[in-house]
Amino acid sequence: MTIDPTKILRLNLPQWQGGDHPDYRTGARVLAAIAPEALGPEETVAVPQARDDVRPVEQGIVSRRPLLDLIAAASAAIDRHKPDAVVTLGGDCLVDLAPIAYLSERYGDDLAVLWVDAHPDVMGPQQFRNAHAHVLAMLMGIGDPDFVASVPKPVKGDRILYVGLTETTPFETDFIAKHGMARLNPEDLAGSAEPVLAWLRASGAKKVAVHFDLDVLDPTLYDFLLSQDPAAAPNAFEGIAKGRMRFEEVAGILRAVDAEADVVGLAITEYMPWSAMQLSKSLQTLPLLGER
Amino acid sequence: MTIDPTKILRLNLPQWQGGDHPDYRTGARVLAAIAPEALGPEETVAVPQARDDVRPVEQGIVSRRPLLDLIAAASAAIDRHKPDAVVTLGGDCLVDLAPIAYLSERYGDDLAVLWVDAHPDVMGPQQFRNAHAHVLAMLMGIGDPDFVASVPKPVKGDRILYVGLTETTPFETDFIAKHGMARLNPEDLAGSAEPVLAWLRASGAKKVAVHFDLDVLDPTLYDFLLSQDPAAAPNAFEGIAKGRMRFEEVAGILRAVDAEADVVGLAITEYMPWSAMQLSKSLQTLPLLGER
Repeated sequence: MTIDPTKILRLNLPQWQGGDHPDYRTGARVLAAIAPEALGPEETVAVPQARDDVRPVEQGIVSRRPLLDLIAAASAAIDRHKPDAVVTLGGDCLVDLAPIAYLSERYGDDLAVLWVDAHPDVMGPQQFRNAHAHVLAMLMGIGDPDFVASVPKPVKGDRILYVGLTETTPFETDFIAKHGMARLNPEDLAGSAEPVLAWLRASGAKKVAVHFDLDVLDPTLYDFLLSQDPAAAPNAFEGIAKGRMRFEEVAGILRAVDAEADVVGLAITEYMPWSAMQLSKSLQTLPLLGER
Repeated sequence: MTIDPTKILRLNLPQWQGGDHPDYRTGARVLAAIAPEALGPEETVAVPQARDDVRPVEQGIVSRRPLLDLIAAASAAIDRHKPDAVVTLGGDCLVDLAPIAYLSERYGDDLAVLWVDAHPDVMGPQQFRNAHAHVLAMLMGIGDPDFVASVPKPVKGDRILYVGLTETTPFETDFIAKHGMARLNPEDLAGSAEPVLAWLRASGAKKVAVHFDLDVLDPTLYDFLLSQDPAAAPNAFEGIAKGRMRFEEVAGILRAVDAEADVVGLAITEYMPWSAMQLSKSLQTLPLLGER
């Protein structure tokens, strides 16, 4: 890693609309509070709290217009600094659209993307109406044209490696094969960074953008994942693939990658600190803090 | 309640030195992130992260000099605004010294103090070296003279009511009786605000400062209390009094108080979101976020 710490942009993006779940906003605010302090510039994109407003589905995507506005705001924030690297604290997975679009334009084919996620995020409006599941396809130039328009240089499939990916649907499996994307599931890794390093060396890329969706982690070990919602019905997440990795495994892989190349992008997404989110709601019931 | 929301100062005070536990700092930062947004002025007192430095005990108090500096900084922040009310987000219990000292000077004998806490916080250097356990005595003018010097108008014992107090030591029991302080344990309250309102009416006070130490809550119901430390030895908190209240009970009492008087002070202290604090440490192991 040769990145100058003062050239790393910290981008706080408490976007919840891409997952259509207002609590992502609180999670992003907590994540920004617990992250090590930024040594370079810091930008926080203002994301209004969810109200009881209607969240319309347009062209198959929930909150399509607010999401396009947030992507524009994130891109503008990045362009103000033209950083060498971006750390993005989300928010739902779609927060990584503007940062990786920027890094792809800046570094071109020298950029590889590690998508550390239990899910492939390559759906479209036909498959799912929440755009956080579309973000990687959009970065490849595939999907809603207005979103894709924010990606001047799409990332090629052979520059993308999934890390910790779990079971995929037939649609996803086909998409991944068709575009020449590589995948390593938790058992392929078996706690070693070597399979990732081998792929990276073969790619020839020297810059790496990392998308770290916390849902790649094992929900029996961490209490801050979407599927750990204490208010969810007992079977609410049945049939949805769950992560099987430990944080230390992911960190070990990323440090090994950073020793061979330059990590220039890191997005942490889908943080759901349920206990803190519950307390946040409780605080609103106190004098001097609650609404009148 | 007749307080103008724009005259409420939000004071973020991530002080950890009073409890000699660096994690209070992270807890305070999370608390500031999850609290409803301030409608009035906001001040954040800069508190350096703990390093591996020695934390000397002087005159029986750990980190005595840094604590005096932080109290001076908090007082200066309050004096910049001369607010009608103060919301303080800690941090250890000692964060409430400067705010209540200010409110006592401003409102005089019209101010009552509700100390919502499992512990009485009236020790001195002879009893305990962590000054977060001294704060209420200091506010009464009793204790280390340099700390007491920041309280121009000490609060009288008969203006103080404990809410949710649990078992006290002989020293504490004598102190409380000797100074005419009133106490209601969780069973005295039995989920009702009436005993608090009766005391408040008898006091004649029309302004109320609330110290809400989260440790008044039942640790079997909440995972963010000091005694819930997942790294603590199994018996680490044996013999230390634990809270027995629910958040909703406390909130109900405070709202009832606010309906009869003006709550002009609210401090939330001793928040320990263990899961977020662990993730905070884990984030430091990632490229672009960790120290180099």
